Amino acid sequence: MSQIADTPKPPYYAVIFTSFRTDGDNGYADAAARILDIARQQPGFLGYESARQEMGISVSYWESLEAIRAWKEHPEHRKVQENESLWYRENRIRICKVERDY
Amino acid sequence: MSQIADTPKPPYYAVIFTSFRTDGDNGYADAAARILDIARQQPGFLGYESARQEMGISVSYWESLEAIRAWKEHPEHRKVQENESLWYRENRIRICKVERDY
Repeated sequence: MSQIADTPKPPYYAVIFTSFRTDGDNGYADAAARILDIARQQPGFLGYESARQEMGISVSYWESLEAIRAWKEHPEHRKVQENESLWYRENRIRICKVERDY
Repeated sequence: MSQIADTPKPPYYAVIFTSFRTDGDNGYADAAARILDIARQQPGFLGYESARQEMGISVSYWESLEAIRAWKEHPEHRKVQENESLWYRENRIRICKVERDY
């Protein structure tokens, strides 16, 4: 069951991933689940939220920029990044510092 | 047609609004459209992205914290904020500084 991420008091970090999918699965569902598994196992992972209609928006929350970098550079994540164009016709990643929440 | 926001080079700001709706419209669609209209007319508005499955995630992008504050304090936006519990059974707002994007 998806729910709003139970993040701690700011400051912390967010990765906003906005995308449009290509047609067909092409291994996407498995890869996406695996990347989220890896995120959950990383030190500094704080939570995850995701929704897709035509556009998809996924936000992962992290303790630090270092934690984000370690996730990004995980060998399986790197491999997935190489296949990105199979799954997304367009995407954008934004690395943010969450300064306030309520 | 929704599309990925064409934001400028960082730094800029993002407001991540994560929510679960209540049942029924209760004036939600009109109010949401109006609040987005007001955002688009505000100085410093940079773009908007939104998706909803069960969870909804909307992200608006802004030049500055001052621009976000002016939008939040717009009289029509304040009135809408008072009715929030009609539309959302749960929601969270995160104010972020976008440090990097790609």
